[in-house]
Amino acid sequence: MHTLQRRAVLSLTAAGASLLTAACAGTRPDAAPDEAGPDAAALLRGTGDLGVVIERAQGALTVVSTTERRAIGRVPGLGDLSHASVVFSRDARYAYVFGRDGAATRVDLLTRRITHRVMQAGNSIGGAISDDGSLVVAQNYTPGGIKVLDAATLELLADVPAAMPGGERSRVVGLADLPQRRFIYSLFDAGAICIADCSNPRQPRVTTLPDIGKQPYDALLSPDGRTYIAGLFGEDGLAMVDMWAPRLQVRRILGGYGRGEQPLPVYKMPHLRGWAIAGRHAYLPAVGRREVLVVDTTTWEEVGRIPVAGQPVFVMARPDGRQVWVNFAVPDYHRVQVIDTPSRQVVATLEPGKAVLHMEFTPRGEAVWISCRDSNLVQVYDTHTLQPQASLAVDAPSGIFFTARAQRMGF
Amino acid sequence: MHTLQRRAVLSLTAAGASLLTAACAGTRPDAAPDEAGPDAAALLRGTGDLGVVIERAQGALTVVSTTERRAIGRVPGLGDLSHASVVFSRDARYAYVFGRDGAATRVDLLTRRITHRVMQAGNSIGGAISDDGSLVVAQNYTPGGIKVLDAATLELLADVPAAMPGGERSRVVGLADLPQRRFIYSLFDAGAICIADCSNPRQPRVTTLPDIGKQPYDALLSPDGRTYIAGLFGEDGLAMVDMWAPRLQVRRILGGYGRGEQPLPVYKMPHLRGWAIAGRHAYLPAVGRREVLVVDTTTWEEVGRIPVAGQPVFVMARPDGRQVWVNFAVPDYHRVQVIDTPSRQVVATLEPGKAVLHMEFTPRGEAVWISCRDSNLVQVYDTHTLQPQASLAVDAPSGIFFTARAQRMGF
Repeated sequence: MHTLQRRAVLSLTAAGASLLTAACAGTRPDAAPDEAGPDAAALLRGTGDLGVVIERAQGALTVVSTTERRAIGRVPGLGDLSHASVVFSRDARYAYVFGRDGAATRVDLLTRRITHRVMQAGNSIGGAISDDGSLVVAQNYTPGGIKVLDAATLELLADVPAAMPGGERSRVVGLADLPQRRFIYSLFDAGAICIADCSNPRQPRVTTLPDIGKQPYDALLSPDGRTYIAGLFGEDGLAMVDMWAPRLQVRRILGGYGRGEQPLPVYKMPHLRGWAIAGRHAYLPAVGRREVLVVDTTTWEEVGRIPVAGQPVFVMARPDGRQVWVNFAVPDYHRVQVIDTPSRQVVATLEPGKAVLHMEFTPRGEAVWISCRDSNLVQVYDTHTLQPQASLAVDAPSGIFFTARAQRMGF
Repeated sequence: MHTLQRRAVLSLTAAGASLLTAACAGTRPDAAPDEAGPDAAALLRGTGDLGVVIERAQGALTVVSTTERRAIGRVPGLGDLSHASVVFSRDARYAYVFGRDGAATRVDLLTRRITHRVMQAGNSIGGAISDDGSLVVAQNYTPGGIKVLDAATLELLADVPAAMPGGERSRVVGLADLPQRRFIYSLFDAGAICIADCSNPRQPRVTTLPDIGKQPYDALLSPDGRTYIAGLFGEDGLAMVDMWAPRLQVRRILGGYGRGEQPLPVYKMPHLRGWAIAGRHAYLPAVGRREVLVVDTTTWEEVGRIPVAGQPVFVMARPDGRQVWVNFAVPDYHRVQVIDTPSRQVVATLEPGKAVLHMEFTPRGEAVWISCRDSNLVQVYDTHTLQPQASLAVDAPSGIFFTARAQRMGF
């Protein structure tokens, strides 16, 4: 049973969406000493080099500084973070945490307190923030659809169901922000791509592009916001939309890459995001295959594939595009491989720890942080020398998110 | 007499480099009310949406919030800012201000205080910060060369003269950071490009590429850090280096674009920087001509030119590359033009105020801030609707710099 199916089963046990109290500041039962005091002078700092690490078992965040390469605080009380994603306010002070259980939580990175928290759905898969920072949107499995929330208060502004012809709802995946308070996402069960214009946030207008292919499982927006690509789980290929075209239409790409040629087991769904694009090429995980696909972003045709050590989960370009780092599904998830993009060769295989779940580059790419869940470690590497720089003890770390994401589209 | 020549004359009147006191915190004779108190709680804020505007006549900074679209404070006492540039610490808390008079000043954006200030040269043209945030480097006209400073203290770590064969020194232009604490710059008087490896900051190792062409006047590093391009004032064309090549060498590009075909007067030197690159093309100001050159970044050949309303000074791509905004030298500097990149057409001509000197996009490109020196205004526009969003009263504003630059190479 692949991850999306398992998630759907799990979601049946979740309670329906409900609104919790909106202001939870102060409820921090196990606050660490450095978080306890209201000594604002001690908390005064820049936020451009901060980040958070998800503690997936504890339902907590570890707040980190990429300059000091250490944890500076911890925020518990975030619920089920077995799958979690984070976006940041445009001032890089607040993290919006979207938990598996449908909670959306706004965390102040400076005071390390929860400022607002709502249960916006029963089963959620992530969120996004509008270009102007005024709206956050959650993408939900149960009930299938998106919710538009006020970024300052988490007040619900609009509920947009992902309705299908029969009346059921589709799960939503692949959410990304577009300019002018618009959002784009895909419908796993309906095989469609939707664009929600939230310029009037209480009355979003939704445009639906149908028949994109079977089971879009995740998607990416190119760093310039021009190209949206949804990966398909149910068949070969991906679905692409040029957002700059006068008339929006879906184009199928990479139709024969091999997803469908054999019934390969898939041990973990790969993730897509704008980090796949490096210069003129996109580097995409081949679902079910031990390969990275290299795609020309002019023609959107495959121009190569790179054999790797396992089924790729995250295929992430260093910000300068000179390297692509890859981690893998079980049973190969103790390894990370580094691809040199000009030569398309794997130039290094690292073993940072047990159960590597995620990686995040510092904004200028000089370092990468890698979460090793079963080693309870976050490992920091110099991306040029490939030497370890630091090691942080974190309980069952999964996602790592740095505040520089606030400055980017599609993150 | 073009600007560089005029600057060289002016520099003769400047005093030699000298070290001032290193800690000037508290010396703020005309601090505004909101800067005066040590109330740290009131100062607690994220720094991802901050920026500074140079008050060129007053020698001061106006500190702004791009979320609130207003000034949040002011920092005087910065000396001669008739030409000034700014880089930011990687936590986005501190601005490093490089003044025309050779001063380097570190300003705390949260407390709006000067923390450190040194006279590092007699005549300076800007600075850069290393990828790891540990070093700042100034590029100087007098004495010609670069100075390497500790980013935390502004202590001088190394003085690297730009020596020429005859013993004189060359003025330095076009400084940019490269990965691994390296910096690249051009020698106006020597016609050379230098790379200083400051991984051992007290003993930089300099590699010089000679014979690049006459009078490089400024340069850009592509956003991926791969391509360095120096514009030439003394002849047609530009000099390019591929930083990823196994052996560094200079290639001449755009040799016949027309700089040299007629002795056109140049009213203001254009500025180059990574913002010139939008997707697959670079948009470059044609020195002395009322044109923007469009260059294919694969072949580095000209593929078009766009007639504009005057001699372009800044030619800046919106972060998504969909638009390029252009301002102009006197007498056309009351206008700003907007180019739509897919069609290469000028789609709008704005008149934001008198003497438009600079523009800066918010990191995700939804807004642009434009300084109008002789109107004493900074105008903020929505880049999609082209409608004004805000107007800030600032005394003789010139350069505008947002903290998101901290997250980028070559800025």
